Amino acid sequence: MERYFNVRLLVMFLAAGAIAVGASARQAEPLYKDKSAPVDQRVDDLLGRMTLHEKVLQLQNRASGKADQIDGIFSGQSYGTTHEMGMSAYDCAVMYAKLHEYMRSHTRLGIPVLACAEGIQGIVQNGCTLFPHALAQGSTFNPGLVERMTAAAGEEASAIGIRQVLSPVLDIARELRWGRIEETYGEDPFLIAEMGIAFVKGYQSRGIACMPKHFVAHGSPSGGLNCASVAGGERDLYNLYLYPFRRVIRETSPMAVMSCYSAYDGVPVSGSRRYMTDILRGELGFDGYVYSDWGSVERLMTFHHAVATREEAARMALLAGIDVNVDSSYETLERQVEDGQIPLECIDEAVRRVLRVKFALGLFDGSTVDTASVVGIVRNAGKVALAKEVADESAVLLENKGGILPLDTRKYRSIAVVGPNSSQALYGDYAWTGPDTDEGVGLLQGISELVGDEVAINHAEGCDWWSRDTTHISEAVDAVRNSDVAIVAIGTRSTYLGRGPKYSTAGEGFDLSSLELPGVQQQLLEAVAAVGKPMIVVFISGKPLAMPWVKENADALLVQWYAGEQQGRSMADILFGRVNPSGKLNVSFPRSTGNTPCFYNHYATDREEPFDQPGSPEEPKGHYVFDKPEPLWNFGAGLSYTTFEYEKCVMSDSVLRSGDTLTVEVTVRNTGKMDGKEVVQLYVHDKVSSVATPKQQLKAFAKKLVGRGKSATFTLTLPVSELAFYNADMQEVVEPGEFEIQIGAASDDIRIRRNVVVER
Amino acid sequence: MERYFNVRLLVMFLAAGAIAVGASARQAEPLYKDKSAPVDQRVDDLLGRMTLHEKVLQLQNRASGKADQIDGIFSGQSYGTTHEMGMSAYDCAVMYAKLHEYMRSHTRLGIPVLACAEGIQGIVQNGCTLFPHALAQGSTFNPGLVERMTAAAGEEASAIGIRQVLSPVLDIARELRWGRIEETYGEDPFLIAEMGIAFVKGYQSRGIACMPKHFVAHGSPSGGLNCASVAGGERDLYNLYLYPFRRVIRETSPMAVMSCYSAYDGVPVSGSRRYMTDILRGELGFDGYVYSDWGSVERLMTFHHAVATREEAARMALLAGIDVNVDSSYETLERQVEDGQIPLECIDEAVRRVLRVKFALGLFDGSTVDTASVVGIVRNAGKVALAKEVADESAVLLENKGGILPLDTRKYRSIAVVGPNSSQALYGDYAWTGPDTDEGVGLLQGISELVGDEVAINHAEGCDWWSRDTTHISEAVDAVRNSDVAIVAIGTRSTYLGRGPKYSTAGEGFDLSSLELPGVQQQLLEAVAAVGKPMIVVFISGKPLAMPWVKENADALLVQWYAGEQQGRSMADILFGRVNPSGKLNVSFPRSTGNTPCFYNHYATDREEPFDQPGSPEEPKGHYVFDKPEPLWNFGAGLSYTTFEYEKCVMSDSVLRSGDTLTVEVTVRNTGKMDGKEVVQLYVHDKVSSVATPKQQLKAFAKKLVGRGKSATFTLTLPVSELAFYNADMQEVVEPGEFEIQIGAASDDIRIRRNVVVER
Repeated sequence: MERYFNVRLLVMFLAAGAIAVGASARQAEPLYKDKSAPVDQRVDDLLGRMTLHEKVLQLQNRASGKADQIDGIFSGQSYGTTHEMGMSAYDCAVMYAKLHEYMRSHTRLGIPVLACAEGIQGIVQNGCTLFPHALAQGSTFNPGLVERMTAAAGEEASAIGIRQVLSPVLDIARELRWGRIEETYGEDPFLIAEMGIAFVKGYQSRGIACMPKHFVAHGSPSGGLNCASVAGGERDLYNLYLYPFRRVIRETSPMAVMSCYSAYDGVPVSGSRRYMTDILRGELGFDGYVYSDWGSVERLMTFHHAVATREEAARMALLAGIDVNVDSSYETLERQVEDGQIPLECIDEAVRRVLRVKFALGLFDGSTVDTASVVGIVRNAGKVALAKEVADESAVLLENKGGILPLDTRKYRSIAVVGPNSSQALYGDYAWTGPDTDEGVGLLQGISELVGDEVAINHAEGCDWWSRDTTHISEAVDAVRNSDVAIVAIGTRSTYLGRGPKYSTAGEGFDLSSLELPGVQQQLLEAVAAVGKPMIVVFISGKPLAMPWVKENADALLVQWYAGEQQGRSMADILFGRVNPSGKLNVSFPRSTGNTPCFYNHYATDREEPFDQPGSPEEPKGHYVFDKPEPLWNFGAGLSYTTFEYEKCVMSDSVLRSGDTLTVEVTVRNTGKMDGKEVVQLYVHDKVSSVATPKQQLKAFAKKLVGRGKSATFTLTLPVSELAFYNADMQEVVEPGEFEIQIGAASDDIRIRRNVVVER
Repeated sequence: MERYFNVRLLVMFLAAGAIAVGASARQAEPLYKDKSAPVDQRVDDLLGRMTLHEKVLQLQNRASGKADQIDGIFSGQSYGTTHEMGMSAYDCAVMYAKLHEYMRSHTRLGIPVLACAEGIQGIVQNGCTLFPHALAQGSTFNPGLVERMTAAAGEEASAIGIRQVLSPVLDIARELRWGRIEETYGEDPFLIAEMGIAFVKGYQSRGIACMPKHFVAHGSPSGGLNCASVAGGERDLYNLYLYPFRRVIRETSPMAVMSCYSAYDGVPVSGSRRYMTDILRGELGFDGYVYSDWGSVERLMTFHHAVATREEAARMALLAGIDVNVDSSYETLERQVEDGQIPLECIDEAVRRVLRVKFALGLFDGSTVDTASVVGIVRNAGKVALAKEVADESAVLLENKGGILPLDTRKYRSIAVVGPNSSQALYGDYAWTGPDTDEGVGLLQGISELVGDEVAINHAEGCDWWSRDTTHISEAVDAVRNSDVAIVAIGTRSTYLGRGPKYSTAGEGFDLSSLELPGVQQQLLEAVAAVGKPMIVVFISGKPLAMPWVKENADALLVQWYAGEQQGRSMADILFGRVNPSGKLNVSFPRSTGNTPCFYNHYATDREEPFDQPGSPEEPKGHYVFDKPEPLWNFGAGLSYTTFEYEKCVMSDSVLRSGDTLTVEVTVRNTGKMDGKEVVQLYVHDKVSSVATPKQQLKAFAKKLVGRGKSATFTLTLPVSELAFYNADMQEVVEPGEFEIQIGAASDDIRIRRNVVVER
């Protein structure tokens, strides 16, 4: 439900009535306003001055309202900004400046608001740079680049007056029907952790707080249905779902965490003290404040039916550890404290956490919005170039038969650019604009700009992205017939914050029961292929779909997860060889809807059973009867226009003990004809483990440019602590024994295998 | 892997070497041979006389060997009987008589063997009555009938010398890709428990021990792949998976339980003392012996990689609580005891459990095989009639547009009987014969016998059940063109104990990645429909498949889960109105492969979210974008040729307390034109529960014949204890509050709703 509001303000109302304070405080500047005092003392001082009403207002985020209703706060109305207003970044900054000033000068204690925005693919405010979506960030396998990206987005946020983003998403993409796959970093907990850490660091470097979400175990809903329950136990929880949160919290100390809508093993997580306090704070060491996902508190009643009233929902959530609530049910807290239902200490503790963040961000200390700086900072040339750079590194080349790519414009004098995703730039579900507007550069424009008059372009969409309408396929066929090569752009389209396109096929709340290409896209492909020209498929999407026909029939396949405003230029540069693709798959492609889950890091028992006899339609066998339980394209895969040879591998040791770190130096030679970036990947296979561990687990990776004909050394490190897991007794252990270290260019392209022994 | 051997012997070898025994024992008849002594004393006495070698032999089940190698036991060879021999029931009885006599007279201590057989759909020995498979037993909703069925099968077992069956299956059918759906009683834990109890009671009434399996949580493998890991936590375990075991153990005290191959939440269950001892014995009160699923001990090494050696696997399993092992790894136990790796007490305890069962079954006390009785008992007329009766009650009529069924032979003078499943009788995966032989009566024969010369029959299969071969579809079309009505029999075919048909599409080890009709069956249907004659679809299958086209286009749909040797006669009787169908769906039908899971007893959060906006291909919406997350046909559904009106419902109380039992009396009137059986179903909806509970839960049902124009009263009872669940703290609780009691003819056809309040 986060989609309905793209900018969120934590507006903490202040009652107008005066409150008696001690005589000394009357005269001197109160301690909480003293910059030099320690934060905890300032918090305590302020807390001591606040009425219960004022405290409870600190725990509520009011997200709705209109910019011209800023005076609404006088009368207790909520406040915020939504995109229906089409407010520019500059106007938004002006509004925030007004608001900050108002809070400072017109409220009793001058407690500032903490303005939040969605910020997963750049700041969701009109005119901000549209960076690639999370899934595309993940496929760069380049955390450093993501950190630069969020630092840039953080500059924009800061200029506007936004000091917190409701990101990153640390959910694990294992259920491909789920619409929110695009918001994740993919299927691997280690990659998610690395990306999440980079994401938070980048924003934090510009004074922007982050909010990892959705805590916890939110990525595998039953049936792929958004918010549905997740089945799993303690080991899945600790070994899989908590892993990215544990690392991001430990390594970045984020100031907030967002709870989740779902239940895990039947327990509504947002109402569970065990999850939101004991584990999150006690075990993971989180010390910021917890923010409810939008409506997740009231949903303890309306969705989970775990309580019967709004009062109980609010109480359950607060006592669980949800400090700030985004629905209205926390309005009931004041009365519940007065009635003795909730101890005041619980309110105080939650308020303390919120205030601590506000102090830490400097909001009390003259933080202002410099509206004059907005134009120079927001979407300046450097940021646009950075958006392009992230897009360049995110695209994944999966097929390139006969090296048809990069396209030789001397050979291909006319090009058909067809398909439903061939013209519009496509964004994910948390963008401030979408495919029904003209922001950003789509594939057609990118190609047109690049080839200029040199090559003729024939364009027709041929079909839309969702309907059964086949009447326009012939137009695409004609375009292909008149061309030397066909580029067919297919895939999904996502909603953007609930506002379009009319028929979303991905994004929050838009889940698929079939992973086949929606609409008549498959028919379009077959009609184009029937013309007999070389066919390049460009898959622009928020999630993998099942495309066995494409694997069989396309000459090339380039995958681009929604890659921001420069996506068209990036794809054009890749298709024509100005950029050498270097993205790697962060989520595996299934062979069919029913041939799932297909993530690479499955347990040994879940495929490849000794007695398995995978079949085919021609020769049915065991399981599957007509298929084999393997992906079409596997995690970590991605072609380059050059080739890399893994020449040498030096390991620091072959026997390890607790506390050790294995260092692996891999020398890779670029043996092809173009400079290129390689992602060297290190996977671990625990040969014997008392409970199930994944068959392969990514535990290190490094991306580096290797010049043509040159070689480079990639250094990867593996702390022994990364070999730990929770055993049958829920003890975190590294079990002594043999581990296979796999070094390769993809999870299914291991070049070097070495055994190491971990000793007790 | 159970499929490779259809008769299993627990052959306990005895070392030939004499063992010193006390002087007193030398003279007198040993205590363990004294029928009048208490079992525990006899066990202790015998145990005291056994060598370690003899003890360890008691813990091993040797399933291979040949009948003519009976002397093999002298030389330590294994022994048993398999179906490759094609041994008749009589020959088998002779063999067992010889074996029993041999063990008594030629071994040192005269410890008898305990002969086991598969017995899920009748005894798996050539010539025994082939009853309907478990899924068909479940759809009868008639536990009394199932109890009569297993009593009959028990007579056959007993006559042959078999004293234990490796059934029932208490797994829960939630993952429809899984091949073993057919072996379950369906998707509902309550129905499974009721059927499991009836099944065990029937066999036990004839002195046959049962072995509920697969303990535990084996029914929802990842990807639908047999033996794959199951994701779930403590609440799923206790509220769902343990439920049928808890009840069957409490209400029938079965003498054995079989472990499972799979891991639950990462823990290999067969190697877990928590599961196999603490929960099974400590919490559920089981006091028989535990039998490993075939190879599941060695698989702790080869499949789970939880241990590195066979020795460790054997040790892990024995210490977990696996008393009898069916692979060879327990051969290592003797040495491990001698080496001090395993305490002798652990061996003694396991042997004690095995011996206790042998004593309890009377095997030491002159139990003999009366080979002369075999012919009169096995597959006598009463049993064949009973097989037909179970089939009659199992078939589920799901569509009957315009009341086309029962077919009026005055109107339809010629009938096409087409489709791949139209001629062969089809059995499940644990039958002694299969569809490539001529045992049993298929649909074509059943119809032919019934209509005689009265009606013309045109037959052609049209296609097979698996291949892409369309060349014969025209033959079926011709048959239909020449007929007044078409009966099209489609579905799956299962392996039978690993031996055929060549291309199984269901059964153990034959999992599907697609739930669409395999092969070209859909094309056959469409070709037949195009002829324009009325079309009756008969779906003969081991699992539901996705058939939205059938729902839309067929005039009638009759579902028959593999229903034993009389299936053809039963279907004919139903199609022509000699039997009024009364089966109810025990597993819901999905709309598509990806529109799963579709079981009815889902959590509130897993469908019907307040904000859900199901879509369609014409008007895509939320989730699913192009579909709605609902089954095509729901649990409990099933039409009759008559109609039932729910006239009255009297409840014993509307306020309940712990220990109470609600009694509900429902008066149902047969308002149609034919006598018929109705299944009145009682579902519970817990309106508010602190953790997720199913939206609906079947908690009582009753089946009764109601004469045409007559009414009958159905009495259903609901103990308050059935409202209990395990909460977030894993306490078993009945939470006070309001519960809706739903009385209806199906889970989605609730006729009466009443609220009851449970007070503290």
